[in-house]
Parts: sequence; structure tokens; C-alpha cells
Amino acid sequence: MRAVDIIIKKKEGLALNEQEINFMINGYLSGEVADYQMSALLMAIVLKGTTHEEEVLLTKAMLESGDKIDLSKIDGICVDKHSTGGVGDTTTLVIAPILAALGLKVAKMSGRGLGHTGGTIDKLEAIPGFNTSLSEEHFFKEVNEIGLAVTGQTANIAPADKKIYALRDVTGTVEAVALIASSIMSKKLASGADVILLDVKVGEGAFMKTLKDAKKLARSMVDIGKSQGKKMVALLTDMEQPLGVAVGNSIEVIEAIETLKGKGPEDLKLLCFEICKEILLLTDKAKDEKEALALVEDSVRTGKALKKLELMISAQGGNKAVINDYSLFGKAKELIEVKAEKSGYIKAIDALKIGEASGILGAGRIKKEDSVDLVVGIDVLKKVGDYVTKGDLIARIYANDKGKKETLEIIKSSFQYSKEKVKPRKLILGKIE
Amino acid sequence: MRAVDIIIKKKEGLALNEQEINFMINGYLSGEVADYQMSALLMAIVLKGTTHEEEVLLTKAMLESGDKIDLSKIDGICVDKHSTGGVGDTTTLVIAPILAALGLKVAKMSGRGLGHTGGTIDKLEAIPGFNTSLSEEHFFKEVNEIGLAVTGQTANIAPADKKIYALRDVTGTVEAVALIASSIMSKKLASGADVILLDVKVGEGAFMKTLKDAKKLARSMVDIGKSQGKKMVALLTDMEQPLGVAVGNSIEVIEAIETLKGKGPEDLKLLCFEICKEILLLTDKAKDEKEALALVEDSVRTGKALKKLELMISAQGGNKAVINDYSLFGKAKELIEVKAEKSGYIKAIDALKIGEASGILGAGRIKKEDSVDLVVGIDVLKKVGDYVTKGDLIARIYANDKGKKETLEIIKSSFQYSKEKVKPRKLILGKIE
Repeated sequence: MRAVDIIIKKKEGLALNEQEINFMINGYLSGEVADYQMSALLMAIVLKGTTHEEEVLLTKAMLESGDKIDLSKIDGICVDKHSTGGVGDTTTLVIAPILAALGLKVAKMSGRGLGHTGGTIDKLEAIPGFNTSLSEEHFFKEVNEIGLAVTGQTANIAPADKKIYALRDVTGTVEAVALIASSIMSKKLASGADVILLDVKVGEGAFMKTLKDAKKLARSMVDIGKSQGKKMVALLTDMEQPLGVAVGNSIEVIEAIETLKGKGPEDLKLLCFEICKEILLLTDKAKDEKEALALVEDSVRTGKALKKLELMISAQGGNKAVINDYSLFGKAKELIEVKAEKSGYIKAIDALKIGEASGILGAGRIKKEDSVDLVVGIDVLKKVGDYVTKGDLIARIYANDKGKKETLEIIKSSFQYSKEKVKPRKLILGKIE
Repeated sequence: MRAVDIIIKKKEGLALNEQEINFMINGYLSGEVADYQMSALLMAIVLKGTTHEEEVLLTKAMLESGDKIDLSKIDGICVDKHSTGGVGDTTTLVIAPILAALGLKVAKMSGRGLGHTGGTIDKLEAIPGFNTSLSEEHFFKEVNEIGLAVTGQTANIAPADKKIYALRDVTGTVEAVALIASSIMSKKLASGADVILLDVKVGEGAFMKTLKDAKKLARSMVDIGKSQGKKMVALLTDMEQPLGVAVGNSIEVIEAIETLKGKGPEDLKLLCFEICKEILLLTDKAKDEKEALALVEDSVRTGKALKKLELMISAQGGNKAVINDYSLFGKAKELIEVKAEKSGYIKAIDALKIGEASGILGAGRIKKEDSVDLVVGIDVLKKVGDYVTKGDLIARIYANDKGKKETLEIIKSSFQYSKEKVKPRKLILGKIE
């Protein structure tokens, strides 16, 4: 078998078989297939497409290239949620305690984030004392006892995907459904959960700019998961404006706590509840939507979900007092208020720009080695459709020394106004199952 | 400017501008653009196509990446011929003496061949004493005095093309009109001739398998050349069977000498005469086809063309006695006769297989470092359409120690027979000007 013949086959629009896909993926990881051959194949895949069968094979090849987490030591149904990546997305910290409170198991091994804000691991480290490097023993014990745990990734998950992802980034081959789907699903399948909910973001702030593309991606991922015996559902959700209010690390943790107290932003609450509802239906924990939603609301209203978060914080060495005393998170040096420059209805809030601004403040990392500033960030106080009068407070910047002026300009420019009335945006755009 | 943005632009099917093309070509040569980026771009070019403008820009970028031969020291019109590569193609050694005899200048700097048989330089080295490493002074003097010279390439011609070609070979991006056209034309334009005839081979034995693709390639190359002020014409010629009889090195030189004596194979003679005719018309050395053909025939009939070859051999230190004593070329150890396995009309002769067989005998090289066996080769004694009786001699193998048995099998299997009458193949399939 020769790499060049496989590339030519895909170039001619033919489907690759299992041997060919494994040859390329394993060969690339081992160095037998050169990076310039892999990038030519990737471009051919982007331009010629793939069959569902090929997407499954690609996913499996990348999954098999590394470790798989064995969750069999956990009693009960292990569930997982994955978001394709948006701005200000704090859902994991809300839904994991809710699902644990409802008897499901959330055993999350997370990587550190690359991008505008930190990943879930970074956010949790904003809690004083919180340990994200659990031993395997500790991790499984914690999940079995309290229903949830989040620890940093030590396993070698889908190394072929990692290597290919880095190549895609510099060869213009990021945006292809087959490649995105197999990349995400190889990691999700390696994580071991039986039930997986995908939150596929749609809009300018996301990978998928149109509903059509998002649907295609969701379809592909759901089918890949099902073909491997997983229970799957995907929600298509709007990312034309940031989700919730907070975009940062500690401020997003605070927002999650507020949501678990029943007080968070409406859109974040809506999305979290929808996600939990779908997972309850998938796991037969509720017989219909109404019952599912009632269970979710109940877990919040009674404080059971918040209690699960508190238990997790304690179990992982964190100071559980943060739940009632947000000052324990520490504070950014400066709070800058951003005022509306015009009167009118808000027509658009560029989520990507807001994310970039947050990154410039130091909330995210560009390179893996960068450290994350946990206290900086942005509160976006308005939503598309809101009416504002010139001078109204529309956002707050929590800044230390980096990028104050630049951030202010970016945030101002990310708001667009209209004299005409603007409809609020719909958050849940569809479901693929 | 970033390579990834340029790749994405081409991926989206947009035309690249001069700055972008120069950035990629020069960057690749200097190492700033990685090979995996160039291969992704090449695949996008293959699958998304290029405009005529882009093809010209690609050619110019590769041309400018290296040396250009300055033929201004030569008095008269410098002409050049390029074949896209076939099997048993001995035309250069026939047409150069004819054109020199008719007052044109053929100043050829050739590389060594990679493939089934050696390049023109290798073939000439079959002549005892023949020097293919001329000084610049000697080269120009020889062309000015006798009208022709052939020397090995020492200049650094189109290094970007060389580097890209090597990459195309291993990334499945060889067969794209834009890439083939710009690769050939960057080298042709660097070679300095004012008038260029292209012999674009069509068929199973050639790069271009169909007349449609060959026409596209010819059109592109002719247009590129014209845009740079060259006089251009392209002939489309059949390569569904080997050209002439001999496929090898010394046996092809002998065949060229025979043709200059008026005795060579009909098809080789026809093609050489057509090429010369077209060049005479392009250079206004003849007022019409009839006059052009008469001039060509005259140069052979009177021995003037053969005399030019003899003069070149002498001028380059070779033994001119080879012209009348072919035994001076040396001899292969064995002569193996290949007999027809069936009676019938010959339906097809797989030129590619014949070429491969010749390579297996040692007539060609796979790697640049390989040496070429100058005396081995194959005579293909029949043409498509000929009737043979089982046991008739159809080919001869000139072999030394390598690959005798394998070659015999390949040659046998490259002939196909039919009970029905088969039409002889047409050699000249079209002209693009």
C-alpha cells in the first residue's frame, strides 16, 4: 500500500476502505506517511467529501490510535456533553451538578482550553484550592460517591487526531464536516461515556456559520456515535451572540453557581435545562419532556444540584465557601464600564469579537504554554433585540494590566444598533437524533 | 501574507493574484512555506482549477526562481522542441540536424532522463567519445558554426519547479493541466529559444490519456508561451503504441541516423517531418506547408541533415564513423526474439508496458544516481493494424544480464490481437496554435 495511491483515490472522489484509512492514520502517527501527504489527503477530503462509512472509519482509526478511558468501574449510566465551541459557554459547570443530582454519572476528563477563554479545567482552577490532577482511584471513587468529578487529561487520547488537527490548522483544512466530526467523535468515544449530548453551535461566533452546515455536522457525529453503540443526540444552538453574560474564567464559574441558585441569565439557564432534559430522555430517567423538565427544575429549586457542585468542590480540595462568597475568587484590578454609543435596538453582538477581547485581556491562551488570567473577562449585559439609550451600560470589562484600551474598542465595535425593532434571537435552533 | 489564507482562497475556488502566487512559490523554495502547505495548495489547484492568468503567473514565478539561458550570443533564430514524454521518442536527434541544415539554430541544454529510457543526453553518450559537458564558450561557438549542439544542463533552471515536481510525485498531484503546463513552460522559457514547438502525446503511453485533456494542456502551454512573446505551436500526437521501432538508447540513436538516411520507420519520419514543417512555418522559413515539407525532404534526400549530425558528433568529440558502422555502438549480450502468440490483427500495443520493459532491461533510471545501460532495449516490429500469423517475429529484445525473462513476458502481454480487421492508428491528432 502506498500513500500516494490512497491520495489519488480520494482525489478522484472514490471512498477509501478501512485498510486505506488505517494505513494513512497510523502511518501519519508513526511517521511513515509524510505530513505533506496527509495534508494533500485532507485537502482532497475537504473538496471531494466522504461517505458516512468513511467518517466512521476515520473516527475509529483516530480513536484506536490512543488510550480509551474505561468507565466500567463506575456504577450507573455515564453521560457526557460536548460543545463544538462558542463564546461564554459555561454549561458544563451547570449541567454536571444537575445530572449528578438526578442520579446520572458525569466522569469528565478535560483538556486545557486553547482559545478565547480557558477550558473547564482552567475555570475550575479559579476556585481556591481546587485540584484538577486527581489520581485514577480518587477520580472513580468521587464519581461513584457523589456522581461527578472533573480532572485534567493525563491519558493519551486520540494522538492521531491531535497531530492531524495541528496540520489542518496550517493547511486550510479545518472546516470540513468529515474532519470536524471524526476529530470530535474520536475523542468523545475515547472518553467512555454511554450517552453523549452534542451542543452544535451555529453562527458567526462558531465553527459552523450556517444552520445547514451545523445540521450536517450534527448528523454526521450522531451517526458516528450510534454506529459505535452510543446513545446520541445533538442540539443546534445559536452562537450569533455570546451565551449568558460572563466571558472569562472565574466570572463564568460565578455565573454557573448563580444559575444553579436559579438566578443565572435566562439564555444560559434555558440551554442547560434543554441539555439536561435531552439527557434524561436518552437515559430513560424521564418518560417525557414535561417530566424531564420538571425533574431538572426541581433539582435546582431544592438546591440539590448546587449541593452536588459543593460536594465536588470539597472532594477536589477546593474552598466550598466560594459558593456563597464570590470575593474568594479574587478580583481584577479594574472594572471598566462600556456604554452604548447610540440609542436603538441591538441588532447584533459579535460573539467572536467579544471572545477575542476576552483573550486579549488574558482570559485565554494562544499557545499551550501560556498561563491564563483567571479573574479577567467581560460581562455582556445586553442581548440582541434589547432597546438601549445612548450611554446605557452595555458591558463590563474586568481587566488587569493587559489590553484594556484595545478591549474597550473591540467591545464597542462588536455591538450593532438599529432604529427598527429587532427580534430577540432564538437559542435552540433544532435537534438531531 | 500567510500561506494558510492563500490555501483557503484556492480551496474556495478563487483565483490567486501575482503576490500570492509569488509568495507561495518563493516561500516554498526558501523554506518559509512548508511542504505540507504547498501540497495542500497543489491539491486545491488540482481539484478547483486555475485561470489562464494564474497559469501564466505560476510559470513566471517558477521561471524567475532560477537561471535563464541567454541565447543572444547566437546569430539567427533559436528553435526548440519539447515532447511531453512518450515511449521510444527519438525525434530530437532527427529534427535538430534537419533544422540546422535549413538554417535554424538548435541550442539544446538537456537534463538526464528519469524514466523508461534515458534522456537525449544519455542517448548521445551511446556514441563513443561524445562529450555532453561542453563549456559555455564551446557550446555557443558550435551552435553558431554548425547550427546545433546538445549539452548537459549545468544552469540552475526553475529550481522551484524541481522542488514542486518532487512533491507532486508523492502527493497525487501530478495530473493537473495547470501544474503540468507551468512546470514544462517554466523550463522551456528559461531555455531561451524564440520559437517553441510542443509535441503533446496522447494515450495510454502518455501523461494525457485523452485527446480532450491533451488539447487543454496544449492550449494552456501555447497561451503561456505566447503571453511571454514566444512563437508557439503544439502538435497532438498518438502514444497508444510506441513511436518508431527502437526503445532504448544506442538503438534509438541508430534509428535516428537511419531516419536521416531516409530509411527510418514511417511513423517516426512522419512525426519528425511534421515537427520540422511547423517550425519552418513559425519561423517564416517557408511560405506554406508544401514548401516547408519540400525543404525538409530535400535536407534528408541530399544528406545535408545527416551531415549536420556528423558535424555535431565530431564537434563534440564523438566518433563520426558510427554513422556508417553501427557496430561501434557496442552490442548487448543477447538478442531474444519475441514471436506472436496468436494469429490476427494487432489491436493494441501497450506503449507504457514496452517502456517499463525497456527500463527493466536497464535502459532507463528510476533514481537520479542510477546508471543507464546504453546498449539494451527493445525493437517493436509491428504496428497496430498489422496482420500477424502465430509465430511471426513481433519484437526483439537486446538484453544484458538484467530482467530478460520478465521483459519477455511483459512484451508478450503488451500485444493484443483481434480476429476482425483493425485500422492503423492516426499519428497526428491535431494542432493547437
